[in-house]
Amino acid sequence: MRILILNPNTTAGVTDLLVAAARPVAGPATRIVATTAPRGVPYISTRGEALIGGAIALETLAEQHSEVDAAIIAAFGDPGLFAARELFDIPVIGMSEAAMLTACMLGQRFSIITFAAALGSWYRDCVDMHGLWGRCAGIRSLDESFGPVADVQVEKEAMLVALANRAVQEDDADVVILAGAPLAGLAAKVRDRIPVPLVDPIAAAVKQAEALVALNPRKATVGTFRRPAAKPTTGLGDALAARIEMRDLPEAAE
Amino acid sequence: MRILILNPNTTAGVTDLLVAAARPVAGPATRIVATTAPRGVPYISTRGEALIGGAIALETLAEQHSEVDAAIIAAFGDPGLFAARELFDIPVIGMSEAAMLTACMLGQRFSIITFAAALGSWYRDCVDMHGLWGRCAGIRSLDESFGPVADVQVEKEAMLVALANRAVQEDDADVVILAGAPLAGLAAKVRDRIPVPLVDPIAAAVKQAEALVALNPRKATVGTFRRPAAKPTTGLGDALAARIEMRDLPEAAE
Amino acid sequence: MRILILNPNTTAGVTDLLVAAARPVAGPATRIVATTAPRGVPYISTRGEALIGGAIALETLAEQHSEVDAAIIAAFGDPGLFAARELFDIPVIGMSEAAMLTACMLGQRFSIITFAAALGSWYRDCVDMHGLWGRCAGIRSLDESFGPVADVQVEKEAMLVALANRAVQEDDADVVILAGAPLAGLAAKVRDRIPVPLVDPIAAAVKQAEALVALNPRKATVGTFRRPAAKPTTGLGDALAARIEMRDLPEAAE
Amino acid sequence: MRILILNPNTTAGVTDLLVAAARPVAGPATRIVATTAPRGVPYISTRGEALIGGAIALETLAEQHSEVDAAIIAAFGDPGLFAARELFDIPVIGMSEAAMLTACMLGQRFSIITFAAALGSWYRDCVDMHGLWGRCAGIRSLDESFGPVADVQVEKEAMLVALANRAVQEDDADVVILAGAPLAGLAAKVRDRIPVPLVDPIAAAVKQAEALVALNPRKATVGTFRRPAAKPTTGLGDALAARIEMRDLPEAAE
Amino acid sequence: MRILILNPNTTAGVTDLLVAAARPVAGPATRIVATTAPRGVPYISTRGEALIGGAIALETLAEQHSEVDAAIIAAFGDPGLFAARELFDIPVIGMSEAAMLTACMLGQRFSIITFAAALGSWYRDCVDMHGLWGRCAGIRSLDESFGPVADVQVEKEAMLVALANRAVQEDDADVVILAGAPLAGLAAKVRDRIPVPLVDPIAAAVKQAEALVALNPRKATVGTFRRPAAKPTTGLGDALAARIEMRDLPEAAE
Amino acid sequence: MRILILNPNTTAGVTDLLVAAARPVAGPATRIVATTAPRGVPYISTRGEALIGGAIALETLAEQHSEVDAAIIAAFGDPGLFAARELFDIPVIGMSEAAMLTACMLGQRFSIITFAAALGSWYRDCVDMHGLWGRCAGIRSLDESFGPVADVQVEKEAMLVALANRAVQEDDADVVILAGAPLAGLAAKVRDRIPVPLVDPIAAAVKQAEALVALNPRKATVGTFRRPAAKPTTGLGDALAARIEMRDLPEAAE
Repeated sequence: MRILILNPNTTAGVTDLLVAAARPVAGPATRIVATTAPRGVPYISTRGEALIGGAIALETLAEQHSEVDAAIIAAFGDPGLFAARELFDIPVIGMSEAAMLTACMLGQRFSIITFAAALGSWYRDCVDMHGLWGRCAGIRSLDESFGPVADVQVEKEAMLVALANRAVQEDDADVVILAGAPLAGLAAKVRDRIPVPLVDPIAAAVKQAEALVALNPRKATVGTFRRPAAKPTTGLGDALAARIEMRDLPEAAE
Repeated sequence: MRILILNPNTTAGVTDLLVAAARPVAGPATRIVATTAPRGVPYISTRGEALIGGAIALETLAEQHSEVDAAIIAAFGDPGLFAARELFDIPVIGMSEAAMLTACMLGQRFSIITFAAALGSWYRDCVDMHGLWGRCAGIRSLDESFGPVADVQVEKEAMLVALANRAVQEDDADVVILAGAPLAGLAAKVRDRIPVPLVDPIAAAVKQAEALVALNPRKATVGTFRRPAAKPTTGLGDALAARIEMRDLPEAAE
Repeated sequence: MRILILNPNTTAGVTDLLVAAARPVAGPATRIVATTAPRGVPYISTRGEALIGGAIALETLAEQHSEVDAAIIAAFGDPGLFAARELFDIPVIGMSEAAMLTACMLGQRFSIITFAAALGSWYRDCVDMHGLWGRCAGIRSLDESFGPVADVQVEKEAMLVALANRAVQEDDADVVILAGAPLAGLAAKVRDRIPVPLVDPIAAAVKQAEALVALNPRKATVGTFRRPAAKPTTGLGDALAARIEMRDLPEAAE
Repeated sequence: MRILILNPNTTAGVTDLLVAAARPVAGPATRIVATTAPRGVPYISTRGEALIGGAIALETLAEQHSEVDAAIIAAFGDPGLFAARELFDIPVIGMSEAAMLTACMLGQRFSIITFAAALGSWYRDCVDMHGLWGRCAGIRSLDESFGPVADVQVEKEAMLVALANRAVQEDDADVVILAGAPLAGLAAKVRDRIPVPLVDPIAAAVKQAEALVALNPRKATVGTFRRPAAKPTTGLGDALAARIEMRDLPEAAE
Repeated sequence: MRILILNPNTTAGVTDLLVAAARPVAGPATRIVATTAPRGVPYISTRGEALIGGAIALETLAEQHSEVDAAIIAAFGDPGLFAARELFDIPVIGMSEAAMLTACMLGQRFSIITFAAALGSWYRDCVDMHGLWGRCAGIRSLDESFGPVADVQVEKEAMLVALANRAVQEDDADVVILAGAPLAGLAAKVRDRIPVPLVDPIAAAVKQAEALVALNPRKATVGTFRRPAAKPTTGLGDALAARIEMRDLPEAAE
Repeated sequence: MRILILNPNTTAGVTDLLVAAARPVAGPATRIVATTAPRGVPYISTRGEALIGGAIALETLAEQHSEVDAAIIAAFGDPGLFAARELFDIPVIGMSEAAMLTACMLGQRFSIITFAAALGSWYRDCVDMHGLWGRCAGIRSLDESFGPVADVQVEKEAMLVALANRAVQEDDADVVILAGAPLAGLAAKVRDRIPVPLVDPIAAAVKQAEALVALNPRKATVGTFRRPAAKPTTGLGDALAARIEMRDLPEAAE
């Protein structure tokens, strides 16, 4: 099966980190493909950037969805996730969603650890969006400036480990999620230095994408996750306009 | 003061309805100006369209925010609202937010009535986003096809009144919100046929915009609603890119 | 329009503060009138005093409601609010309700700051009563003795500003409400010393009262906010007894 | 021990029903005494009447608290309960509180059944006030006119039994509370006609009052349930004023 | 009446403490009988031990229920409570349930204080199970090793008092529950050193058991707390198997 | 990898159904092994049976955990799940947990459909236990008698499909879970007759077990999911006693 890792940020170095963390856990029949947002910001960290990044994720999916079996929206706040799940027929998984749901099977309450304070409120909205506050022990973030985002996991490794340990000690976290695409792969490195299970969101997302493809659920044809009826559009990107206007139907038997 | 009604849909006829419902309640010193989305869909009714419409609302605000004292995002689900509140310095009010908060002062629990079943889940997300389920008696919508969206309030008037009365009788609604931009102005017409207070969202939004302008709150300079630090962008519309990159600062002392 | 500020405390000096803070934000067509409770305690700060003050607020409204277009119950815990909304035909707004709902439009989560620890539990009940915990970042109060209540905002200004800043830093408050009638007017004075939007409850209440009068909602004739059917009473004040017994109906065409 | 049943309504016939239902379950060492509100309305059924009745309950307790070991506020919505718990040193129990807490030990979810639709919203507020929605399967009420309130349990017996059975069948109630002072004693009569445990609120309240007296908890001296510090009052009833002003302290060693 | 204190732990010394704390509050007509689990662990402090202890509590009740009027499951987390309430006809009360419900009548929010950190998560689950988080100010536990569990209340008295005082000061607890069977009787000893009402769970449970026996509720015959229909079993203890298979029915007219 | 399907019921025919539904979705490297409870009841459907079944599941895991890479507790209410997760070092997945978490990735709200009304309250407790009410659109069950439990999915197929369709139409379910071990495999058969994605709990559980094994999380060594310290036991089964007493440590390097 082909699984698309869609990085809604414009930083290709982060996409590389995601792919590097995804491949070791992928099954033998899985082929990981990846794409970096052609438009947007280097690293989404505000509500506005998440909104813009979500709309761009839809454009990218409109172009690539028919070539893959499932897609992962690979930014921790899951920009555009529910919209994508509505508009496309393949399973679409959010990296934060996969991380949190996987964490639920490893304890009762998870903590989310990240590297930038600006991400806090966006992540809080994300826990809300998935209805998982009852399982969340807290969100903790560093509040330090940092260099290139693709290097932040190396630069801040010791501080992130310390923060995770505080979440375990002070917030009674049963599980720790090391959140944010730039931290992809960090969990494997620091596994022995945090005394509870760690979740690497992109790794969790790959396994969840594989699970959904194997379970092969049907696309809804009624309710709010069915594909919306065709509607005219103005000024949108070609592929997305075609998808919304259902101009793709003749050529694709989805 | 100048208040911008930003219709994130592309249907100018709906903008006209909004302006017509707004002007009678505006104060003598208020000038209502309006804009219709240059891109997008005729009428937002799905998660995907709300996401796209929200991003377009940011583009429009980037172009026009410096010429008005406050802006209203005039689609019931408030697409892009929190992002706009973060990115711009003027008060930005959502039409659904204004309707629900105003309804809170007229009873304990409000019902939301609308004309298309597809809007239900989007409105549900909207009540969630504002943390107001504790005040919501329910959401009810017609489930009938309809003609041009700008005419739907005329076409379905009797059915909408009946639906509102059922919300009062069966859901114990203390207040009824007639929701959706195409219903702008309907509340005034049917006031005597529904035995509880009605809220017209655009009318409520105008009064809330006036209130915020009069109260003149400062823009946050810390926390998650401060204006984000400058960040490079790729491929975004000019005005929005300039706002995010802070290229507008020299010319504007906001 | 005439808006009544009803101070349910017996301290006239606090009424003066309220009026002074209300007038600058009132619209040109608004006439602010005020009344101080003839019975009760100098400053409500316990559950028992709130209950007594709420009953006295009903008596006062029974005497004065027909001469004004809207009334504000001007103590932060909104004593008697829902009862007044049920019993009278004009819009009745609570000062805490107006403050919290207005704050909702300026961020996601507000903090309430006040000057006496005894108020904490009463305010907590008040957030509960309005179903707004999901929007509240916390309640913080000074825990110091103070002199005359009408002077407390001068006496404690620096400490209140410091407390508000802690709410922003430690509780991630997006907005700060300076709560309690004796703090009326303080927000305008300390605006530049707290880095997020401030809400002055009486100012917010005036604008919300004006908004409701302009929107002109009908009084409910069914449901729990309709005027209750006439009922005999024993030993109540004349005007309140008349209102409950509907002896006012012949002379007043409400 | 002496337990005071305080009926905050002015109908002595309801007080008689309460006493008649209380005595059979009281322990051998318990003496039931009762009082009917000297002021107010014949039967509290609205928010305004509850507020007025709560204030009158405080007056009555101020007069009688020193002669009893515990008091029961004997109207289902518990008017004035938390205020009384704060202001007086003896245990004060609410009839609805006692009913709901007792019901919690007889199943997981209770339903509240009553005889007048007007009571619904007041009871809903009451479940809220006690934080017990998670245990409540619903509130159902008759919607019929009725004769003298002290006779309503006889007049409507068959309809109330039918309503209770619907709550069991349709709402999955594990326990049924027959709520409202005028229904005191009904549970014992219809026990065999409803297939789940019934709770008679006044009976539950008597046992809870006895339990608290036997457990002999101390009065708080810190926190929000300590007795408030002395405060001047204006125009209140003598006993209540004395209690608030702490003029009772010389003569009573509470 | 006969009330069974069922200690689901195997430590007879703890049973002795429970009986000693129960007898002084029991009414004159109450006979306290007690039993110690014949199988299991000396002191339940984990999820697994609670599960095992709950199943053993069912076995013990199957053997003894017909000889008593009510039973108390006397470990703070209430192991097996709802199952016992379903399977047997007598009232079955949980010690934590009784403590929390009683505490609700002494203030708005209670804190739970205990002696071992391992108990924290089990107690948290217990508050959840009873739907009482809205009334809980927090759970605090010592994190120290201790000697024989039956002596822990003596060994740690000063530290437990200090912890309770911190709950009052820092968490605004209105009431304190001294939780865990090994602390039975401690509340009476330290009453004067904690400035809010204390609840001793076994004392509360005795009074609640007496209350339920006096109220004499019927056993449900429909719904999920009716006695389940007879079902075959394999390999269970004799008395429990007989109860589930309804082999006890010929000899007992329950 | 070896995955154990642990059926906590004593009906081997249900184990066969589970294995038959599990194998088609298992990966090529997965070996499914299964065990049927040696003690207990043919089909768990009450709180008491779930408690007993949970304790038996611990006994079975104590005997078999060291021979497998992960275990699935294969009854919908997840009896003993959190206890097993605490006591053993391998991943332990609940069938209902896996179903609900998987459903979360296929829509916003799932409905649970089952074949016996008695299961309703147990399933409700199960949604509670996982903190997932915010994602649950409802639980619906047949209320009909049925023949042998292993045949119920054939006997009731049409009625279950109708019930699922009602959940979609009336409860707005985005996803339907066909719950209960006896329904294993049904989802695949009726896929085309229900217009939203279906989840077969055992299939979901197999994929989640594979995911956790691949992600290889460490066992907690602090917090409440670490393995509890050794403790003496009395009268428990040999393997479980050894596990709790840590007598297994010499021979097993877990």
